[in-house]
Amino acid sequence: MRKGELTRESIVSLAASVASKVGLNGLSIGALADSLQLSKSGLFAHFGSKERLTAEVVAYAGDRFRSIVLEPALLVTPRGEPQLRAIFESWLDWPRKSGLPGGCFFVAAATELDDRPGEARDKLVALQRAWFETLAALVKRACREGQFRSDLDTEQFSQDMYGIMLGCHHASRLLHDRRAETRARRAFANLLIAAARPNR
Amino acid sequence: MRKGELTRESIVSLAASVASKVGLNGLSIGALADSLQLSKSGLFAHFGSKERLTAEVVAYAGDRFRSIVLEPALLVTPRGEPQLRAIFESWLDWPRKSGLPGGCFFVAAATELDDRPGEARDKLVALQRAWFETLAALVKRACREGQFRSDLDTEQFSQDMYGIMLGCHHASRLLHDRRAETRARRAFANLLIAAARPNR
Repeated sequence: MRKGELTRESIVSLAASVASKVGLNGLSIGALADSLQLSKSGLFAHFGSKERLTAEVVAYAGDRFRSIVLEPALLVTPRGEPQLRAIFESWLDWPRKSGLPGGCFFVAAATELDDRPGEARDKLVALQRAWFETLAALVKRACREGQFRSDLDTEQFSQDMYGIMLGCHHASRLLHDRRAETRARRAFANLLIAAARPNR
Repeated sequence: MRKGELTRESIVSLAASVASKVGLNGLSIGALADSLQLSKSGLFAHFGSKERLTAEVVAYAGDRFRSIVLEPALLVTPRGEPQLRAIFESWLDWPRKSGLPGGCFFVAAATELDDRPGEARDKLVALQRAWFETLAALVKRACREGQFRSDLDTEQFSQDMYGIMLGCHHASRLLHDRRAETRARRAFANLLIAAARPNR
């Protein structure tokens, strides 16, 4: 790897850590440059705009999420429902395992970027859509395997699963509620039971 | 109402609008003072600290939430489950009816304040706890009325309901998914059915 790429990676990695604490809007080119002992213009030259840096930070967090939450779960067999269970557990652990200190990077980024058009928002939306598509593909697999009923609404399942995770994050991060994860697991177990039940 | 109180209210109301767009961290005493044609020190004198102003903005949003989402629903009869249904509908409408332009004020505030100890975070936590207690009281009422099963876990129900709302907000605000609300309604209908079903 060339030195320029290494520097670029160090910048993005540090920026992701900082953003997870102070938010993407709180990123300061000057402060990042100081921390890495680079000149402000030298750092800026790697990206050309703060928007580009922000978009790369979002992409970096997406890569970490895939390698921590998704990839290990895809090795689980049999495919379908057992993989969704594995994803659910590693997703619960994501804020702790992400290496980004300030809770779930994506919850914070979604709130900051939802009203802010640009490359960073586009990147985040692309990642979130890809994540929903991944979940939908696993749900469809579970339907084909007979683990879930064949006419299950896969997008409903994905939004419900996402909501359980957001409700858990909210209760644990803001309210420090120790039973939040236990309740999230119960809610997900109920979702799986409902997905397997023949439709009314 | 004395002039000082009127000014104070205008400041808090404007600050809440601004914060709903740029975040609580983005509030600038100088910019608020300019918009209201006050001196910076004059505006500051009303609160004494930016943290105090931020806490009052959170309290202001909480008052609006109660008057828009909660109070009309409490007039619904019979009590219990029909009130929860009414709350769910007005809660879905809250980002549009709040008078605060940038989506759900509380989703944004929770993300910004979860790691930031202080008076504003304390106020937000108190509001969120009070909200969970209100939901729990209505769920208990529904159990007593025989609308829900008697041994229902009220905290589980509340966290699940909150998660449905957060999942909907995420899909509609970030992904502009037009079916997000339809799915949220279906998820809530399923939650109500499960709450009424005798326990396994």
